Amino acid sequence: MIKVGIVGGTGYSGVELLRLLAQHPDAQITAITSRKEAGMPVAEMFPSLRGRVHLSYGDPVAANLNACDVVFFATPHGVAMAQAPELVARGVKVIDLAADFRLQDTAVFEKWYGMPHSCPDLLKEAVYGLPEVNREAIRGARVIGLPGCYPTATQLGFLPLIEAGIVDAGHLIADVKSGVSGAGRKAEVGLLLAEASDNFKAYNIKGHRHAPEIVQGLQRMTAERVGLMFVPHLVPMIRGIHATLYARLTRLDVDLQALYEKRYANEPFVDVMPPGSTPDTRSVRAANICRIAVHRPEHGDTALILVVEDNLVKGASGQAVQVMNLMFGLPESTGLTQVPVLP
Amino acid sequence: MIKVGIVGGTGYSGVELLRLLAQHPDAQITAITSRKEAGMPVAEMFPSLRGRVHLSYGDPVAANLNACDVVFFATPHGVAMAQAPELVARGVKVIDLAADFRLQDTAVFEKWYGMPHSCPDLLKEAVYGLPEVNREAIRGARVIGLPGCYPTATQLGFLPLIEAGIVDAGHLIADVKSGVSGAGRKAEVGLLLAEASDNFKAYNIKGHRHAPEIVQGLQRMTAERVGLMFVPHLVPMIRGIHATLYARLTRLDVDLQALYEKRYANEPFVDVMPPGSTPDTRSVRAANICRIAVHRPEHGDTALILVVEDNLVKGASGQAVQVMNLMFGLPESTGLTQVPVLP
Amino acid sequence: MIKVGIVGGTGYSGVELLRLLAQHPDAQITAITSRKEAGMPVAEMFPSLRGRVHLSYGDPVAANLNACDVVFFATPHGVAMAQAPELVARGVKVIDLAADFRLQDTAVFEKWYGMPHSCPDLLKEAVYGLPEVNREAIRGARVIGLPGCYPTATQLGFLPLIEAGIVDAGHLIADVKSGVSGAGRKAEVGLLLAEASDNFKAYNIKGHRHAPEIVQGLQRMTAERVGLMFVPHLVPMIRGIHATLYARLTRLDVDLQALYEKRYANEPFVDVMPPGSTPDTRSVRAANICRIAVHRPEHGDTALILVVEDNLVKGASGQAVQVMNLMFGLPESTGLTQVPVLP
Amino acid sequence: MIKVGIVGGTGYSGVELLRLLAQHPDAQITAITSRKEAGMPVAEMFPSLRGRVHLSYGDPVAANLNACDVVFFATPHGVAMAQAPELVARGVKVIDLAADFRLQDTAVFEKWYGMPHSCPDLLKEAVYGLPEVNREAIRGARVIGLPGCYPTATQLGFLPLIEAGIVDAGHLIADVKSGVSGAGRKAEVGLLLAEASDNFKAYNIKGHRHAPEIVQGLQRMTAERVGLMFVPHLVPMIRGIHATLYARLTRLDVDLQALYEKRYANEPFVDVMPPGSTPDTRSVRAANICRIAVHRPEHGDTALILVVEDNLVKGASGQAVQVMNLMFGLPESTGLTQVPVLP
Repeated sequence: MIKVGIVGGTGYSGVELLRLLAQHPDAQITAITSRKEAGMPVAEMFPSLRGRVHLSYGDPVAANLNACDVVFFATPHGVAMAQAPELVARGVKVIDLAADFRLQDTAVFEKWYGMPHSCPDLLKEAVYGLPEVNREAIRGARVIGLPGCYPTATQLGFLPLIEAGIVDAGHLIADVKSGVSGAGRKAEVGLLLAEASDNFKAYNIKGHRHAPEIVQGLQRMTAERVGLMFVPHLVPMIRGIHATLYARLTRLDVDLQALYEKRYANEPFVDVMPPGSTPDTRSVRAANICRIAVHRPEHGDTALILVVEDNLVKGASGQAVQVMNLMFGLPESTGLTQVPVLP
Repeated sequence: MIKVGIVGGTGYSGVELLRLLAQHPDAQITAITSRKEAGMPVAEMFPSLRGRVHLSYGDPVAANLNACDVVFFATPHGVAMAQAPELVARGVKVIDLAADFRLQDTAVFEKWYGMPHSCPDLLKEAVYGLPEVNREAIRGARVIGLPGCYPTATQLGFLPLIEAGIVDAGHLIADVKSGVSGAGRKAEVGLLLAEASDNFKAYNIKGHRHAPEIVQGLQRMTAERVGLMFVPHLVPMIRGIHATLYARLTRLDVDLQALYEKRYANEPFVDVMPPGSTPDTRSVRAANICRIAVHRPEHGDTALILVVEDNLVKGASGQAVQVMNLMFGLPESTGLTQVPVLP
Repeated sequence: MIKVGIVGGTGYSGVELLRLLAQHPDAQITAITSRKEAGMPVAEMFPSLRGRVHLSYGDPVAANLNACDVVFFATPHGVAMAQAPELVARGVKVIDLAADFRLQDTAVFEKWYGMPHSCPDLLKEAVYGLPEVNREAIRGARVIGLPGCYPTATQLGFLPLIEAGIVDAGHLIADVKSGVSGAGRKAEVGLLLAEASDNFKAYNIKGHRHAPEIVQGLQRMTAERVGLMFVPHLVPMIRGIHATLYARLTRLDVDLQALYEKRYANEPFVDVMPPGSTPDTRSVRAANICRIAVHRPEHGDTALILVVEDNLVKGASGQAVQVMNLMFGLPESTGLTQVPVLP
Repeated sequence: MIKVGIVGGTGYSGVELLRLLAQHPDAQITAITSRKEAGMPVAEMFPSLRGRVHLSYGDPVAANLNACDVVFFATPHGVAMAQAPELVARGVKVIDLAADFRLQDTAVFEKWYGMPHSCPDLLKEAVYGLPEVNREAIRGARVIGLPGCYPTATQLGFLPLIEAGIVDAGHLIADVKSGVSGAGRKAEVGLLLAEASDNFKAYNIKGHRHAPEIVQGLQRMTAERVGLMFVPHLVPMIRGIHATLYARLTRLDVDLQALYEKRYANEPFVDVMPPGSTPDTRSVRAANICRIAVHRPEHGDTALILVVEDNLVKGASGQAVQVMNLMFGLPESTGLTQVPVLP
């Protein structure tokens, strides 16, 4: 039984970790911390967990995280890198759901997250937790930088094209849409139901932190310079990401559907849909699945790739559990067999 | 042209006042204040007003409210009573959309709003701004305490029964439901789209500030002691209140439909629907209308009254303009002829 | 391994059965039928089931339902009673999610469902599938009439009061609210997103089919004549029922909280919440749980009971699986341990 | 006073016409028809119109449309072209909100709408009702083919770039998103709240009828062959269209912001927003406005244009009234001064 610690379990990726781990046969949550809610029973904060999670939030200072086998950080950016070195030194594996261990270039990290990186050495050995790309490295990792929600969908969507070298990598377009839980459980006027429902808009046009992360991931696959126009939009729904991806083909003789099916043939959590499909986000709601549809409208020179995931599952906490399974030698799907909730 | 000032125009009742007054033929907004947003153009904060409202928020201290004919307070409780005495002394009429001038019993006010009343003398002359009850008094008033959103719907629904003296006034039940804009434009986790949408719950079971206000209003109509069980619920929608009202009949020989039709026959903003109706909130969306349906299921001894209103219009800013029209001798419907927006 | 057949698996209770049974360790779906969709793979109709359900819809006539151990009817009213006699005769257990075996009085059935009952003898032996009331009878039953969604919540909410004989049973009020999936997966204008979202209304004021079912259930517990005012409302959300129940107390010396806690102490799927709670529907979303909060506002003479359930789970398909578990001697919670999905 | 007839007033563009015309100072609805609802008072079908529209639906055959000055067709495709010739012959102006008079190439019309065009001669003289392009022609027209909702937003967004000849017109991308009212008021499972809410998806990838209409419009502005990838998505909201437009710049020395501001300087219903803006659909809710924001991210070679409109107003009925105003010599904004409803 894997002893699991969670730092910062009051946000959406935290409560989603709790939901998934409460059903995991080989993991046991032994500590969960929150500065603000120390002392409060978890199930009082989230009544959905009544009878299923019996822990209370512990004080971050007092919590004995060193006794855990693995610690998830579901915290704001900057928290994990402050605590990871000590944990790792004591043999505790670290999975950071925030951005501290995603970007290898510390200058890029500093530019986008507004703080210097406090443990660049540990960052160097950290593994980017996208199993479909880094499965073997994840198995042996001590520290994981888990991909962001948009980067998971966007990279899985573009990867086969980039790896095959058949598109103009310098002019990729990602028109992405996310439910509001992607912004986290924070009190902001713009995220109120009265503001965000019955409404649709783009945001962060001038630059979204997930763009450099995506470029870093795609750049590893090609010698060509990757250029990405990344346009996020806010959808009046709770969960779900839909990425609509456009890439100009440099070769027109490749069977795109076959390319994707082959690339993801052995992936337990990536579903390449039949030709002509338009996946909807609810088809993956609350489950650790990424569904992809491949189009080339009017047999033209532009590939159109549609990708859906639940931002809190395959885009965050589900992927975190998938990574944990790999790190501890468990079957990759352990505890992740929930069927999507529809309707 | 009536010169209008608005104090606190950044919340939902404030922006709704702006929407309505921008279309009002006989009123002109000459000052609008906000402590936090002083200097910002109104239309920058609310792009829906681009091209229609050209003012910027002014500093509350510097704003020359004394030059206005009327000042609306769309502020937190406590602000209006601090400023009203001076304005009234200078001949400026005051319409408070908050609670400062609603409750005549200062002890009750203090209990529910947690602050002493700072101008009990002015409170005494203040008129409760429900035109269907106080039309004549409103015409001559210097200070108006505008009814809350729930109290408008609930009182209009119960009034004919109480006035006629045909129900057990000691055991009224108001099962009321409101869209989230009723809670105001404030950053609270519980009001986030990710929390409040696809969800339904009751709240404030232990006591809602609107309950004593409703009791005060109904008590004026009867010698019997009024008892009210008031249970508010939060609906995952932006606007709208639906009150489902239950009253045990003490007389079974009264034609309830006729009673309501007669009571509201001359009311421009109260619509008694045909027998058998179930009004939906969208039928009054964005318009200054209250629709009422009267039922007596299975010809039993319980009256069931359904009431809908837009909480921001007839439940707040629309009623405020209606009251202003009365105070300034204009036709009551001036500037309030918007047709509800459906779908 | 229980061999399961599903008749009519294209509606919401059908697809929810599929979701739950696909995760059930001791049941296997061996046949699923649909007149309209015969031949279509289930996962093509509901992509959420891709990789999890490999069956295609079969023709109702050709399907070998007789080879099943149990057949669920997730069909319109009237279908189950036409097929049940033959199935039962061949030793197949029948669980009807529609109304054919709910109402013991065939005249009442005929009045509300507009058709004569075709197998009154089988109806006589049918057991009403509410485990919290009929657990032992369910274990031995051959035919189950599964409670409706509203009746489950409403009965579980009123039961302790009625059983204890401490309320005026003749004047119960159930102000109930349901998400739109309760109306089924049928193309009706009134259920369109453009009609039903950002909107709230009551409906079926003149009489809802679930009212006589509730009265039948409560009447069994008391010699007093049960009278119920039942007012359903449509909430702009997908799943969830919230029942707000009012009953006038005839005794004021009973500890209501203790009464409910004792009544449901051993129930695996009924959660009596701490005093002062206001359960929200999302706290049971996609899980087989009914949460109840008990109030007596201002220590008055009216009990206020709040009940939430997911109408498709504890209100339909989850309860159906719970009943199946009982009928086949499995632990009652088998396959029903999903944690509610929040947010 | 213009005498107005409406054919097919039971859909969303029909009821929106009713809402707008009920507030129009110079127009009077004298006839409204519906095959299915003949005899029913309009306000019974749409209670939002109680007290404002006193007509009943008339039988299409019996209705005296010839006595009208103008007839709006808010009908399925094919109806207007059957009736327009006779009306025009009698001097009645025709404004078709469907597609019968949009596409000048009858072969293209037949391909996309699956029916031959029955009055190609009248089609030839029909004017495409986009005032920002065809204002003068509209003033003198007898028959108007009103633009579709997507085409209005997409063309207004691309027009300045195409007219200026500064983009690769052969590779335009329109990633467009619409609220569900765009699909009309028809009973379809996919549009149910339980299906479409808390969900997001693309649709009609293989070809949307609005694509050839947009291409036709843009092609008129350039000698270069226009190529458009048009990807529509369904947003879980009632009203609103958001077009996210991408065009590769062939010249980098043009001030795009200035270009757009100049192009639309005198347009009463097109609002070019300040640099850096991200318009939201609610900023135009229920009003006849199109807002546009112009971006060139990272000063790169791709223009990113964001456009919002209310699909039922500037995308349909509002534009219809705007066109009517032009045809009858009224000030263009008559009856169209509603302020957007926010929140």
